[in-house]
Amino acid sequence: MNTEPMKKRLGNIRAQFRRHHVGAVLLTAPVNVTYVTGFSGDESWALVTGNRVYLLTDSRYTEQARQECFQTNIVQRKGSMAEAAGKLLGRLKSVDAVAIEQTLPLGSYQALKKHAGVRLKATDGLVAEFRSIKDEGEIKAIKAAAAVAAKALARAEACFKPGITESELAGILDLEFRKRGCTNGFETIVAFGANASRPHHQPTQRKLRTRDTILIDFGARYNGYCCDITRCFVIGKPTKAYRQAYGIVERAQAAAIGMARAGAALVEVDAAARDVIRRSGLPVYGHGSGHGFGLEIHEIPFLKEQAKGELRANQVITIEPGIYIPGKLGVRIEDDILITDDGCEILTRKCPRTVLPA
Amino acid sequence: MNTEPMKKRLGNIRAQFRRHHVGAVLLTAPVNVTYVTGFSGDESWALVTGNRVYLLTDSRYTEQARQECFQTNIVQRKGSMAEAAGKLLGRLKSVDAVAIEQTLPLGSYQALKKHAGVRLKATDGLVAEFRSIKDEGEIKAIKAAAAVAAKALARAEACFKPGITESELAGILDLEFRKRGCTNGFETIVAFGANASRPHHQPTQRKLRTRDTILIDFGARYNGYCCDITRCFVIGKPTKAYRQAYGIVERAQAAAIGMARAGAALVEVDAAARDVIRRSGLPVYGHGSGHGFGLEIHEIPFLKEQAKGELRANQVITIEPGIYIPGKLGVRIEDDILITDDGCEILTRKCPRTVLPA
Repeated sequence: MNTEPMKKRLGNIRAQFRRHHVGAVLLTAPVNVTYVTGFSGDESWALVTGNRVYLLTDSRYTEQARQECFQTNIVQRKGSMAEAAGKLLGRLKSVDAVAIEQTLPLGSYQALKKHAGVRLKATDGLVAEFRSIKDEGEIKAIKAAAAVAAKALARAEACFKPGITESELAGILDLEFRKRGCTNGFETIVAFGANASRPHHQPTQRKLRTRDTILIDFGARYNGYCCDITRCFVIGKPTKAYRQAYGIVERAQAAAIGMARAGAALVEVDAAARDVIRRSGLPVYGHGSGHGFGLEIHEIPFLKEQAKGELRANQVITIEPGIYIPGKLGVRIEDDILITDDGCEILTRKCPRTVLPA
Repeated sequence: MNTEPMKKRLGNIRAQFRRHHVGAVLLTAPVNVTYVTGFSGDESWALVTGNRVYLLTDSRYTEQARQECFQTNIVQRKGSMAEAAGKLLGRLKSVDAVAIEQTLPLGSYQALKKHAGVRLKATDGLVAEFRSIKDEGEIKAIKAAAAVAAKALARAEACFKPGITESELAGILDLEFRKRGCTNGFETIVAFGANASRPHHQPTQRKLRTRDTILIDFGARYNGYCCDITRCFVIGKPTKAYRQAYGIVERAQAAAIGMARAGAALVEVDAAARDVIRRSGLPVYGHGSGHGFGLEIHEIPFLKEQAKGELRANQVITIEPGIYIPGKLGVRIEDDILITDDGCEILTRKCPRTVLPA
């Protein structure tokens, strides 16, 4: 195990103790627990103090935790999580205030407040902020996920035959991930024809027709890290409306990718894509133009109207404008890019785009 | 759409207004939003007042919500969810206190508190309590899920060949669900050999050997409702230790199923299974002996040591004792039962058990 990244993450967390006037940070969001301990299981909390890391878990996970965790004291709890965390905090004489995450459910917060004899300070984006900057290992994992996604899509394309259902095609993609040691990073979306006008369509038993369109929004997860790609395909001859929408979305995406670099305002990168759609006179998508991802499928930064802040080097984000006309068509093109000082690197090139027949 | 169950659910919620001294209930857990509105998407809240139901969603979901929701006012939000909910509550002059769920993230709670000009009352199990009692349609959906799971397992069994990986076998099961219009109700667990000693093992690239064991914990999701089944298989000749453990787990499960009926104390049904393992001298499992499920894979009631309360008619629960010996073996047998007044109905009979060779 390369322990350097873990040490750096712990350092980043501990560097915030002073800012928040706390002696420890309690991580309760599973993804942040994974990020600082390496533990990939569920329903466990991590407590980071000035010189130690504790993982509060239960008997289902202790064996796994021992194998996965980096320099972590594994505490096998018996009672409720809040009780166990309260007890542990009670034993740590040096800690009189602990930072907690805003994602903590209200009920757990109230229980923790009851059991912990220390002050709890709710903090926002305690980990998310520096988790958005990916290190070498993380970028490598995302690239590996993208490579698997490209191979899986190639296999799925061989199944683009009339009669196959959206649901089965989604299952085939997921199986192709599995064959390569990955899982699906999120619920795979497969939408035929007008179903694609719903950006978050769930695959149905709708069958592929001899003249049809396919939208696939999918991503493999490799070693905890996902990728997030959308591709559109045409079976038979595209309609004029589809061809037009596709071309506009392509240009919108290129405009945003062209703007992306460290220091670019989020709102401006978003606007670059959005304005291309707006000028076309077709409906402007209601979602953001892109988002960060990594251990989670949606992480900061979010490219949207009224977004604050700028892109930073080594953030990895999607660029995904779309055009949705209910009952008629849906087109979205989504690629993943790594932000660099002077631009960006496209991580999903291996996943071929449709070239619409002339 | 059969609207009777929806009316009953709304009635059950409104019946609690007086108990909690509120004029409305804000549902924020996706599963409860689905339960009362029929909406199957994500990131949406539902507000139930004395005479109306509102769904707060965004543009990604409005089309879907219009198709799925039962007598619901769909509000397409633009700002944050808390802001939209606050605004809506501000417009409802008759509501001065609203019940909220304990699963609401602390950050959303704080934002809601800021925006809503009404009192917020955190409540526990507002919906979970009556959601644990399944109606006819729900039981039908769970049975359908179990039937699909049985078919999927039969297909997967044909792939029990040396060389296949845990991960691929999990993918095959998921694909078989998809072919039948279902999804996996939760992350499918496939564990070969000693990997099965981790109750929540995640499938790996470990290959099946010519003499091996397989543990599969899986469940299809049909129309929102899942089932939850665990089966164990032996490739080649079982070891003496495995055969012994399997027999004990079988008896432990039968003991709990024999006890299950409306009115039986949760703690006693749990003990029935647990005591069989304890008396055998083998390690007693750290998890519960079973749990309710439905829209979620883990719902109340929970069969565990120190559980309070009793089983009720029309609850659907798992019974799933196991024996785990780290580095050596893992056996768990899990079936789903419908609680009735005089016993229970086993819903997963179609899923054949291993019969160990004599």
